[in-house]
Amino acid sequence: MRDVAVIGVGMNRWGELWEKSHRTIWTEAALEAIDDSGVDHVDAMYVGCMSGGLFMGQEHLGPLLAEQLGMGPIPATRVESACASGGLAFRQAYLAVASGAHDIVLATGLEKMTDVDGGAATYALSTAADQEYECYHGITFPGLYAMMATAHMHRYGTTREELAEVAAKNHAHGSLNPLAQFPMKVTAKQVMESVKVADPLRILDCSPITDGAAAVVVVPLDMAKKMGGPLVRVAASATATDTIALHDREDLCWIGSTARAAEEAYRQAGCGPDGLSFCEVHDCFTIAEVMVIEALGLFDRGQGGKGAASGATALGGRIPINPSGGLKSKGHPVGATGIAQIRETVMQLRGDCGDRQVKNAHRGLTQNMGGTGASSVVHILERA
Amino acid sequence: MRDVAVIGVGMNRWGELWEKSHRTIWTEAALEAIDDSGVDHVDAMYVGCMSGGLFMGQEHLGPLLAEQLGMGPIPATRVESACASGGLAFRQAYLAVASGAHDIVLATGLEKMTDVDGGAATYALSTAADQEYECYHGITFPGLYAMMATAHMHRYGTTREELAEVAAKNHAHGSLNPLAQFPMKVTAKQVMESVKVADPLRILDCSPITDGAAAVVVVPLDMAKKMGGPLVRVAASATATDTIALHDREDLCWIGSTARAAEEAYRQAGCGPDGLSFCEVHDCFTIAEVMVIEALGLFDRGQGGKGAASGATALGGRIPINPSGGLKSKGHPVGATGIAQIRETVMQLRGDCGDRQVKNAHRGLTQNMGGTGASSVVHILERA
Repeated sequence: MRDVAVIGVGMNRWGELWEKSHRTIWTEAALEAIDDSGVDHVDAMYVGCMSGGLFMGQEHLGPLLAEQLGMGPIPATRVESACASGGLAFRQAYLAVASGAHDIVLATGLEKMTDVDGGAATYALSTAADQEYECYHGITFPGLYAMMATAHMHRYGTTREELAEVAAKNHAHGSLNPLAQFPMKVTAKQVMESVKVADPLRILDCSPITDGAAAVVVVPLDMAKKMGGPLVRVAASATATDTIALHDREDLCWIGSTARAAEEAYRQAGCGPDGLSFCEVHDCFTIAEVMVIEALGLFDRGQGGKGAASGATALGGRIPINPSGGLKSKGHPVGATGIAQIRETVMQLRGDCGDRQVKNAHRGLTQNMGGTGASSVVHILERA
Repeated sequence: MRDVAVIGVGMNRWGELWEKSHRTIWTEAALEAIDDSGVDHVDAMYVGCMSGGLFMGQEHLGPLLAEQLGMGPIPATRVESACASGGLAFRQAYLAVASGAHDIVLATGLEKMTDVDGGAATYALSTAADQEYECYHGITFPGLYAMMATAHMHRYGTTREELAEVAAKNHAHGSLNPLAQFPMKVTAKQVMESVKVADPLRILDCSPITDGAAAVVVVPLDMAKKMGGPLVRVAASATATDTIALHDREDLCWIGSTARAAEEAYRQAGCGPDGLSFCEVHDCFTIAEVMVIEALGLFDRGQGGKGAASGATALGGRIPINPSGGLKSKGHPVGATGIAQIRETVMQLRGDCGDRQVKNAHRGLTQNMGGTGASSVVHILERA
């Protein structure tokens, strides 16, 4: 397999973008990534999108977006794995370059979620869970994560305050990110006093509904070296699955797909959790970040709640988590999230993150997951 | 890139399978492919599915199906490109093996289309076209292909009878396929007298709505050699795109994405159209087969109508097209079609097709496309 580098990144301001079509949103991000990379064309592209059908009435996004970009007739493939669609799209782009099939590949993600009403959006998101055995009984994602939170609190003594500190920390980071959907700071007290969604989770424990896109350009490392500029190498790409239904898991408090993907990623990168400068992880709910940083081996089992509460996962702490603001503050257009994590990681490794820059960042990990962790994708990027 | 072989194939009887869930349908096909290949596990899997969301209310099929197969926590990725989803899923599986990322990969396709009513199915299928510029004005796929047929008849003199002969030929082939949804023979006269759908296309010009799945197993060619058994090598894998909206095409009578993908595939395989023993192509409508065999270089531009009418594309003819019965007779569960084409091609190359066997089959081409040809995938397989 060829070594692969990321040479360009793009993303627009995320939010409720009623004035822009999905074509416009995506094309802005894609053009920025191409401009940033310095290439004048791409050989192929991938787009991560969770549910073009239910959110927009539009499947077949590969050729539609390739044409929109003026890059047709290039190969263009959509990849879906619920909220991990972006991460898996990046992995397919990585494999396309690593295999030698293509040289310059655009990896992108898109979701336009606010053109349907809240009920329809909740239904669309629920299709990431087990429709027949979970959703038909009325459960939605806040409810599923609330059960995981309750189990974690019961077994490990994780507190309501510790969950709130995750949101406060990520909004503090997001306040330094000019593209974040909700860049306001919030206090842990505000989180705990916000509207209840599914006990113990409150609205400020939940990532938002978002319109947005992100894009990156990957090429062989040798090509990147010839082009000059900052070199960011893909040191690892790994993915794993778990049961789609929460009730089929051996352990409600453990995200096994992330643990397995991380184990493989550490093996590929030749490093452990101690070798990371920072991580971008999938904090779709505050409890998710708590459980993910355990599965990544950054905190002992059951101790993830200490991450934000102790300051260890804040900028300047032992292992900054979600310097971008995470899904919580930056927003969560589900298909785009995994690509935005790659973008942030590349920018951090380049030292381009301004006020939210992680000091001496040399190696970053991204973790993107679908549903309650039925699919996880982990990438490790490093300065080359 | 490593050479890749297909070592196992599986498919169940297609049709209106109301008594089976999508899980069951898919698992039957996947298990058959695994049994056929002689492996005891797979390292990763891909599933092509067009619209899990609109047809079944279920996205995130990768982990769901991996678990159903008892193969979780393997990497599992869904790929979508409308009716070309299966072909692109096969291509991603091919790249995963060619790159060295995985050794034993299951490439599958699935669509469960009959659990929603006809209107909802027509809407779901329409999301393969340009929702904003085509569908909002009321057009659906029979209408789009009817315009292509009208243009082809006007410019080249293609006749109503020639289109009907495509259906008659494919039903004749399908009558020899025990897994076909509609294995009855039809005459050209019956096709021309069947209910009109969108002038000039009649119901017997159209492929059906189908529940079904198909699966194949791909491994490095070197591994296949060690395992013994019939060797079928992937000689080419290529894909290309075109404008998603028909009105944006330069030429209504030309499927450019197929022509481009075929050109690349012939280059990779080191052969031209003359080197093929047979083809499995995307006859979603009779006119589609006419145009596709032109784009593949098997017939001159405008002469595709002569294919079936002259007998050249029938079993025993110059270049048999759709020995399986094609989408027309075999059925068209959209996400599964591209994989079923690979299955038929492998079986033909092994000489396992009984009454529908192409004599001396040594190299076959599959062509799978999405929408009105916005995406096309072409593979060439050969006996190794």
